[in-house]
Amino acid sequence: MLTELGKRTRLAARGLARLSTTQKNTALHHLADALVADQKAILTANASDVESAKAAGLAPAMIDRLMLNEARLADIAHNVRLVADLPDPVGEIFEESIQPNGLHIRKQRVPLGVLGVIYEARPNVTIDVASIAIKSGNGAILRGGSETLNTNRAMIAVLQKALASSDVSADVIQFIDSPDRALVLELLHLRDYVDMIIPRGGAGLHEFCRENSLIPVITGGIGICHLFVDDTADQDAALKIIHNAKTQRPSVCNALDTILVHQQVAKEFLPRVVEHLTPAGVTFRAEPKAAALLQHETVFPAGEKDFDTEWLSLVLGIKVVSGLDEAIDHIAAHSTAHSDGILTRTDAHAQRFIAEVDSAAVYVNASTRFTDGTELGLGAEVAVSTQRLHARGPMALRELTTYKWVIVGDNHVRA
Amino acid sequence: MLTELGKRTRLAARGLARLSTTQKNTALHHLADALVADQKAILTANASDVESAKAAGLAPAMIDRLMLNEARLADIAHNVRLVADLPDPVGEIFEESIQPNGLHIRKQRVPLGVLGVIYEARPNVTIDVASIAIKSGNGAILRGGSETLNTNRAMIAVLQKALASSDVSADVIQFIDSPDRALVLELLHLRDYVDMIIPRGGAGLHEFCRENSLIPVITGGIGICHLFVDDTADQDAALKIIHNAKTQRPSVCNALDTILVHQQVAKEFLPRVVEHLTPAGVTFRAEPKAAALLQHETVFPAGEKDFDTEWLSLVLGIKVVSGLDEAIDHIAAHSTAHSDGILTRTDAHAQRFIAEVDSAAVYVNASTRFTDGTELGLGAEVAVSTQRLHARGPMALRELTTYKWVIVGDNHVRA
Repeated sequence: MLTELGKRTRLAARGLARLSTTQKNTALHHLADALVADQKAILTANASDVESAKAAGLAPAMIDRLMLNEARLADIAHNVRLVADLPDPVGEIFEESIQPNGLHIRKQRVPLGVLGVIYEARPNVTIDVASIAIKSGNGAILRGGSETLNTNRAMIAVLQKALASSDVSADVIQFIDSPDRALVLELLHLRDYVDMIIPRGGAGLHEFCRENSLIPVITGGIGICHLFVDDTADQDAALKIIHNAKTQRPSVCNALDTILVHQQVAKEFLPRVVEHLTPAGVTFRAEPKAAALLQHETVFPAGEKDFDTEWLSLVLGIKVVSGLDEAIDHIAAHSTAHSDGILTRTDAHAQRFIAEVDSAAVYVNASTRFTDGTELGLGAEVAVSTQRLHARGPMALRELTTYKWVIVGDNHVRA
Repeated sequence: MLTELGKRTRLAARGLARLSTTQKNTALHHLADALVADQKAILTANASDVESAKAAGLAPAMIDRLMLNEARLADIAHNVRLVADLPDPVGEIFEESIQPNGLHIRKQRVPLGVLGVIYEARPNVTIDVASIAIKSGNGAILRGGSETLNTNRAMIAVLQKALASSDVSADVIQFIDSPDRALVLELLHLRDYVDMIIPRGGAGLHEFCRENSLIPVITGGIGICHLFVDDTADQDAALKIIHNAKTQRPSVCNALDTILVHQQVAKEFLPRVVEHLTPAGVTFRAEPKAAALLQHETVFPAGEKDFDTEWLSLVLGIKVVSGLDEAIDHIAAHSTAHSDGILTRTDAHAQRFIAEVDSAAVYVNASTRFTDGTELGLGAEVAVSTQRLHARGPMALRELTTYKWVIVGDNHVRA
């Protein structure tokens, strides 16, 4: 069933790959305008999704994610304009050289082709991904959560109408307009027409894609994140950083999950952590050595799997370690290689931590919350990769491109 | 059965990732020395493989590939020294920046981890891959063809002895010492311990890996390669380039498969092609328009699938096209996106060809035979990727690395 849709997207993406930056930006501004002009249709569709979600008893947090209003829609439209303002990676030339035989060689950035994006109940993803795909010259086949089917349908209608008055073919962004779960599997097998699968959701979705896809999958977005508090850490600063990393937005992948505290300072520092974070609603899971230093109603003994849990909530694991080596070993054993940091004033320890902790983002004296495309200067974000191939950490426009080798000779033959 | 082997390789690779360039190079020179010093053991083992291959009735070309002698072994050892001389990509810093908030950001190259390499009856691959893996800081689990089991076993023994007297753990390079085919499938599922699968062999092996692997696979090495002869091409030069691309080494993936000739020059040029290449043993498969221009005993009508065949032999497809557009369309429909070129003196056509043909290597006025790590300045080659993710075209040391983001703050928290 998806073959026809795949063919159409592939064909449209080939055309998109040749458009100028101005043509793509104009289409994006049309889209931003249309999202505001046609907000009524989108908000009406969204209201019906929200009503169904309430009737189905979805958790309030889920319903909040699902819900759009004028302000949120204006934000989404604003983000489309920000993507239009970003530099276009397509056509960029790099690693240019002339070989000893006179052959001119360069690499030139080209779009990846067609993205397959599978996501859950966040309607903003539909437009975020569409705008990033268009700017990077890629087609996209979107498969959103069934809870947002009406909202997505309305948004896609607005998007396709907006593209129809631009040089970008409306076929570039396709939407799988059915809640049938078998279509997810079909998308994962559509390898003649899709070049990369991006799952955006929980660990289960990522695992399903990895197990079943015949197309390369960008896995990521799962962060069991650590901060190691060294004996020389500035403790006041460490409290602020831990507070920020744990509480500023606990439901996201770069939020802190575990602190590892040097035994020399644990007795002094740990009670301060509990005192400082408890008012924000944080509860703690402490391994025995840490628990022995803490008597507080918010501190619980850590269970067997607690150090392998991505909390996504106001829970913080605490462990006392003998020093840098044990901290590095703990991280190697329990991290998902997303974002891990050291808080220290010992430069040699910072250097060893950077060298030996092999995570997508390694921090020295900063909150883990900066692992984000916008914070790291990419201007946008389509995923955070925790796999090792292609791109690692935040992915935006350039990470949705590949390159071709361009070789220009003067009638060269190989000897 | 491979789990233990995987764990050992992963652990050893972690150690290797921290070694200095000098430590890795010293190990490589030990290996090169040992290959020469212990050549007797290797050549004796190889002689027994060759004998079995003859008894089994393998084709002479296969037996030639399988066969080692003193000179070939010396070449293999020499290549190990060349890899030692290449720049080390590990630790390279790039895209360094300071964000407006003062956060220092850089990307730093790190090894991919552990490679799984599945190859056929070429014993040189064992040492080539081992040396490239060591230099790029990666572990490797090798699975060679069963025809070379004795040779590989002897080479690996020499390699592990050589590493034992170096700082590189002998566990870094593991060899699956069994012809059991079920172990290939097990390797493709060993995702906790292997980061990238590199198949080196025919289309069947690549397809098997793509279908069955839970680990990212670098597919490639299959080249249906085209040259388009434009109406303004320098015909004398074009003959030399076509001769080189077709006959210099017809059994490899960057050899020419099809020429597309502009109708304006076909009548004059095609008979010259046949005349020039027939003495080299080339036979031709011509579509009707081309066949109508050619009467020669080496010219046969093209069959239905001939333009979708990678010849790997002295066969050349010929098609007359109406011009650049038809040439680009034919390539889009039949190329494996490996290496395709244009021969022209019309700069606008060269530019359109570069922009619109989306192959790993796009050529202007040169033989397709240059798609090779050494020819393109990488100094070595572990595979030629025709997929779009991670790396495209020749892959060598840098293509076996990934990067980490290193973020150094002054107690930064996210606002």
